[in-house]
Amino acid sequence: MIQQEAPRRDLYALIEAYFRTRFATGNPLITEAVNRMLAAGGKRIRPRFTLLAAEAAGAPAGDHLPLAAFMELIHVATLIHDDVVDHATTRRGVNATAVDFGNRISVLAGDYLFAWIFKNVTADHPHPIPHILSAALADITDGEVLQLKALGNLDLGVEEYVEIAGKKTASLFAASAACGAIAGGAPANVVAAVRSFGYAYGIAFQMQDDYLDMTSDEATVGKPVGNDLREKKMTIPVVLALAGADRDFRGDLERYYTGDDESPERVAGIVAAIGSHGGLTATRTAVAEYVGLAKAALAPLGNLPARAEFVAIADALLA
Amino acid sequence: MIQQEAPRRDLYALIEAYFRTRFATGNPLITEAVNRMLAAGGKRIRPRFTLLAAEAAGAPAGDHLPLAAFMELIHVATLIHDDVVDHATTRRGVNATAVDFGNRISVLAGDYLFAWIFKNVTADHPHPIPHILSAALADITDGEVLQLKALGNLDLGVEEYVEIAGKKTASLFAASAACGAIAGGAPANVVAAVRSFGYAYGIAFQMQDDYLDMTSDEATVGKPVGNDLREKKMTIPVVLALAGADRDFRGDLERYYTGDDESPERVAGIVAAIGSHGGLTATRTAVAEYVGLAKAALAPLGNLPARAEFVAIADALLA
Repeated sequence: MIQQEAPRRDLYALIEAYFRTRFATGNPLITEAVNRMLAAGGKRIRPRFTLLAAEAAGAPAGDHLPLAAFMELIHVATLIHDDVVDHATTRRGVNATAVDFGNRISVLAGDYLFAWIFKNVTADHPHPIPHILSAALADITDGEVLQLKALGNLDLGVEEYVEIAGKKTASLFAASAACGAIAGGAPANVVAAVRSFGYAYGIAFQMQDDYLDMTSDEATVGKPVGNDLREKKMTIPVVLALAGADRDFRGDLERYYTGDDESPERVAGIVAAIGSHGGLTATRTAVAEYVGLAKAALAPLGNLPARAEFVAIADALLA
Repeated sequence: MIQQEAPRRDLYALIEAYFRTRFATGNPLITEAVNRMLAAGGKRIRPRFTLLAAEAAGAPAGDHLPLAAFMELIHVATLIHDDVVDHATTRRGVNATAVDFGNRISVLAGDYLFAWIFKNVTADHPHPIPHILSAALADITDGEVLQLKALGNLDLGVEEYVEIAGKKTASLFAASAACGAIAGGAPANVVAAVRSFGYAYGIAFQMQDDYLDMTSDEATVGKPVGNDLREKKMTIPVVLALAGADRDFRGDLERYYTGDDESPERVAGIVAAIGSHGGLTATRTAVAEYVGLAKAALAPLGNLPARAEFVAIADALLA
């Protein structure tokens, strides 16, 4: 079989065209709120995983665009709610939904989107796809609650961090890939392979997100930098810097996490201390480890073109 | 067949015992938040509809308690979110969830509950039950958005009011009854009958809720009275009082709805004017009409004991 590489590859464009021309919920105001979020950008990694997994199963990506779109929309709905509770003013460099539409519409828009997605996925897909998708949403919210409970907990270990990141972030990447494979008719070992890939990728993705929050700038990541530290989140650079840290460093972090000085100078000082205690270097190593795990999980895909594209997306985290 | 009335009838106690002894989500903090809401009271009408409909299908009510509980929990989750966006401090006379747990946990708790319910219902029930449940949640949130858009719209007609109440309130009563009948193995005409009953009951229920908001007192309804008017909602007494109203009354309502005087005296004056323009009497008539429609829909149930209990619940709205 001759591989038709060029037209099949541009999954991002396929997804964007779908959202632009075919996406609409039953409520015009909510469709508009979602479209504004979508227009602000995003790499559409979750729906790309769905389409690539469908391709790995031998199915045409174009047949699975609505399912792929659900994955991005679950993510969008959780972001809309996050921005309400965080009183965020911007998201991906544009106004947060709550700024343009108010808190009421934002909470309702997220709820409606969840319900609209499940209403459609239960109409169009047999078990277990609706179950995998709702279990992923349960994981996301459970993970966010666990993260809130862990705020400022300097005793949080790497295993607990990975459990939280697994629920909050990796679960939806795993579900996106698994659902695409199932919808495409993949055998169980391929479903398991892309699910494992999505899960390990998701852990790496969250770790890299934590890293960028300390090392990048607002223009690059589209949100204020040092945010995680200001919110007293336990991110992976903090967890890794604390492993075997001296008493002075730990004491300084304790004062930061229990205090209320979140000035740019203080935050920059904490970032520098995390760096000098190896937290940033160790984070990059951990990202690379999970990227390696993700790629290794793809062995059952043999030399399918989808495998190379999955690998390229994972490697991009290391760029 | 001898009807075993006594033990079978106390569905409320069955539901309460289920929540008390068998209900737990995967997140202890969220289970606790839900249990506080449940402990504050409620008549459990939605789960009772599920159990009665299962009985009408010839199934033992006790076999369908988890499904019945999902109906109450969908309702509880929407209330938790409503209280966040309304900045409500009390619900059923006790602290709103956001007061005890904060806005973040409250938004996440509602999201988690929705996801947890769908995760379980998709694992335990075949199509179309998960679809009916998610479509009902889409209706509820869609109806709430439509209600927000209709705030202060004095041109809102009875038909539009009924459409909004149908989505916001009646849809879940209809789904609760329909899912119980389907799970119990009822024939299509019985499913349709209890669904129609639930829908008409839900419209009557919302109209009566609107009525009580103008005529009851805080101790009776467990929330501040005149709330709907203060929020500039278009409730059925307002819609009906405006039908054929004189210019002076309409002008006064316009001033109230566009102004910012929501003092107890002003609200009491508006309620009195709605009453003298027939809005309250017409509302009671409309409630009775929908109760009549609800009861008439039950004809396919013949003389099943469940029918009498459905009728008693509907008639209680007229007491």
